[in-house]
Amino acid sequence: MTSSVQVLGISNAIVDVLSHVDEAFLARLDAEKGSMVLIDQARAKQIYSMIGPATEMSGGSVANSIANVANLGGRTAYIGTVADDQLGGIFVHDMKSLGVDIRVPPAARSAPTACCYILITPDGERTMQTYLGACTELGPADVTERTVGSPKVVLLEGYVWDIPRGPAALERAMHLAERSGAVVAMSLSDAECVSRHHAEFLHALERHAGMVFANEREIMRLLGVDSFDEAVTATARYNAIFVLTRSEKGSVIVSREEKIVLPARRIDKLVDATGAGDAYTAGFLHAWTSGRSLRESAELGTSCAASVIQQVGARLEKDFRP
Amino acid sequence: MTSSVQVLGISNAIVDVLSHVDEAFLARLDAEKGSMVLIDQARAKQIYSMIGPATEMSGGSVANSIANVANLGGRTAYIGTVADDQLGGIFVHDMKSLGVDIRVPPAARSAPTACCYILITPDGERTMQTYLGACTELGPADVTERTVGSPKVVLLEGYVWDIPRGPAALERAMHLAERSGAVVAMSLSDAECVSRHHAEFLHALERHAGMVFANEREIMRLLGVDSFDEAVTATARYNAIFVLTRSEKGSVIVSREEKIVLPARRIDKLVDATGAGDAYTAGFLHAWTSGRSLRESAELGTSCAASVIQQVGARLEKDFRP
Repeated sequence: MTSSVQVLGISNAIVDVLSHVDEAFLARLDAEKGSMVLIDQARAKQIYSMIGPATEMSGGSVANSIANVANLGGRTAYIGTVADDQLGGIFVHDMKSLGVDIRVPPAARSAPTACCYILITPDGERTMQTYLGACTELGPADVTERTVGSPKVVLLEGYVWDIPRGPAALERAMHLAERSGAVVAMSLSDAECVSRHHAEFLHALERHAGMVFANEREIMRLLGVDSFDEAVTATARYNAIFVLTRSEKGSVIVSREEKIVLPARRIDKLVDATGAGDAYTAGFLHAWTSGRSLRESAELGTSCAASVIQQVGARLEKDFRP
Repeated sequence: MTSSVQVLGISNAIVDVLSHVDEAFLARLDAEKGSMVLIDQARAKQIYSMIGPATEMSGGSVANSIANVANLGGRTAYIGTVADDQLGGIFVHDMKSLGVDIRVPPAARSAPTACCYILITPDGERTMQTYLGACTELGPADVTERTVGSPKVVLLEGYVWDIPRGPAALERAMHLAERSGAVVAMSLSDAECVSRHHAEFLHALERHAGMVFANEREIMRLLGVDSFDEAVTATARYNAIFVLTRSEKGSVIVSREEKIVLPARRIDKLVDATGAGDAYTAGFLHAWTSGRSLRESAELGTSCAASVIQQVGARLEKDFRP
């Protein structure tokens, strides 16, 4: 009996540095609340010197999804680059401890392991400033028949298009995925990221992607429309399954054959909205790669999203069972 | 106007690695629930490979107290040794960001920055396994007129007696404190630590200490008695202020002149009992070094302890105001 990998993720490997700040702090940084911007090492040092005490934990959007699939009991693998420093060790530990097969080990790199300063304002919103560090070294050499293998789904992170050889690495991943019969899934990361790489994202969607994970703003931006309903209509142009999340409005899954509309799960208390989309993706992919229907997959996604927003942190607590 | 330091702490500088485990995990480690034991690097690696995803945050008992005094607005300084690695950077950042004057900078060391695996069982109890790493290099050379300065209180951590040149470093600190007119305060760390260094602790109490912070088990162990009431009576043998915390039974402060009994503050919900004693010490010392009475100091200690157990983590949240 084979135990092939259900989901392989390719993404920026990042350790989150969480800190509480006030509104004036964001103003001093000239940071738009709720946004994610890329910063260089000098800016990263500056921000770190300005914030108060912090907490460190492994993060990254698709890495969160992969960790969550593993936590659900799914077989997973991961490609992303960290340095052989302590934060790299933390990132890899947290993945391996859930059973994720790390395909690119920590290595000497020209920059330290990436970190994302997550600035939490009193209203609970999170503003992110990401220093990509060792992530920027991810390239086609990391994406080989050996490192990709034959998973059921290859999940790509939009943010990887931001790094120098990211597009080439992802192009290679998509070809290898097709050759092995894997479904290419794209996670669009954020609306600004969609704008930065609009042509490449559309190209990947037309040529390679069998599945797209997006929220309302991301899918509208990608398909160039002004409303969610128009976006749903526009998906018919493409031969892919669209998994669209709408926060408290639930989710919509559109394929050639069906359209499923699911409400969000009622929750007792919103603790921390971070990671809702990543957890949804994890639940959906875990179920779908286990042979469940789109509706059942959406239900597990919904359940995971509801759980993750009732706890602190973007990854489901260990041994989570829906 | 001088802005002399209120409290200088000397202690093991540690980054906490927090992880959720089950009871069976403690059994596999042969770890007694609620205990703190010292481990070597090989054992640290083994434990790290066994635990699930973790969260990293600065810790250490007296370091927590110093961070909390700084958070309350007090002027503080700190002596402890970290390596010039990423965890050392995190430890120093978290102290400096609160205004703590770091007297011994990160440096090349023969071992990495210390970490404490905090294993949280479903009942919320915490079992600690500490790898002292770079802490073991703390010695008399780190404790000089320059690094000690002229604080009002020098707060010593019992755990420092565990490291090779710790006793010599503390002996020197006590002499320098006396010469500058500072009060020597001892935090007894834990009952097992009191047993390990019983003679040294009594010597320090007889010759140097003007203030002792302890919980019930620690003070009973130190004074060789079987009940808290006997311990209170036995304190009369020494010329020091005893600040004794009793969890939900409140606290008792005994000096030559007075005995103050204070109830614990009623709380809404116990979230995480870690750091209650350290926070009490911080509140007490901040008030006392600001010229408040013993009762007022105990009240601020009580208030800080009540706050810290209603949040996650052993340090008060930033900009805490009682």
